[in-house]
Amino acid sequence: MKDGPYFEDLPVGTLLETGTYAMTREEIEKFAAVYDPQPFHLSDAGAASSVFRRQVASGWHTAAVTMKLLVESGFFGSTGLVGLGVDELRWPKAVLPGDVIKVRTKVVENTPTSSGKRAQVRWGTTVLNQDDEVVFSFTSLSLFPGRPR
Amino acid sequence: MKDGPYFEDLPVGTLLETGTYAMTREEIEKFAAVYDPQPFHLSDAGAASSVFRRQVASGWHTAAVTMKLLVESGFFGSTGLVGLGVDELRWPKAVLPGDVIKVRTKVVENTPTSSGKRAQVRWGTTVLNQDDEVVFSFTSLSLFPGRPR
Repeated sequence: MKDGPYFEDLPVGTLLETGTYAMTREEIEKFAAVYDPQPFHLSDAGAASSVFRRQVASGWHTAAVTMKLLVESGFFGSTGLVGLGVDELRWPKAVLPGDVIKVRTKVVENTPTSSGKRAQVRWGTTVLNQDDEVVFSFTSLSLFPGRPR
Repeated sequence: MKDGPYFEDLPVGTLLETGTYAMTREEIEKFAAVYDPQPFHLSDAGAASSVFRRQVASGWHTAAVTMKLLVESGFFGSTGLVGLGVDELRWPKAVLPGDVIKVRTKVVENTPTSSGKRAQVRWGTTVLNQDDEVVFSFTSLSLFPGRPR
């Protein structure tokens, strides 16, 4: 059963904002220990001589939490959010232990296929910290079905 | 202390291949439960009615393991691998429980800054499964220091 949006529900400009997520020091360290064990992700001491000066979250950790917030928003339904590709990942500001982040995403393009049965929808996504600073951004392309006729 | 490569060590065409990593069903499910709880990542049953038909790894899980393999290759040294950005993420084939993946990355561009003290190095990366099929690809840009003069 389809319970997510149809492409007709997603005109250009459609805006979605998720709930928030607190990036704890414990989780930043745990994720990094498994997936990105660079010293500046593991502890403040390991970060002291790095460009960051203090412990920062792995960019891939922030990306994973972004996906979590999008999925848990419920907006895309249980049939899921299958992407064709993701582009232009940037991490303009470090995510620090204690930061509380949220995701804001917007439809920037909605191009029905020639049959009109589906559309490619491009999203522009930013992730913001508690001071509304952008800590992560990217665009992504997904395929959405059309409303049954 | 600098223990990673200088940009002069990374001419266009430099190729690096990491070790391998087995994507177990347990880890695929655990990562998905926390970061990408879509039914087709959580179990075969949840995937049955999806386009995948069986459980597949989250694309963000594959991305995180890619980072792990690159960091643990030791090639970039303990001072780390700080990216300016990542582009063109594509997941052309699903990663299934039991797949064994490895990362192959190549320098595709090496552009010294005007001072000649640093260079922007662009990498083209593919992740391959045990049958040498590409399951993930992207390009990334990193800044590397030049050899001390």
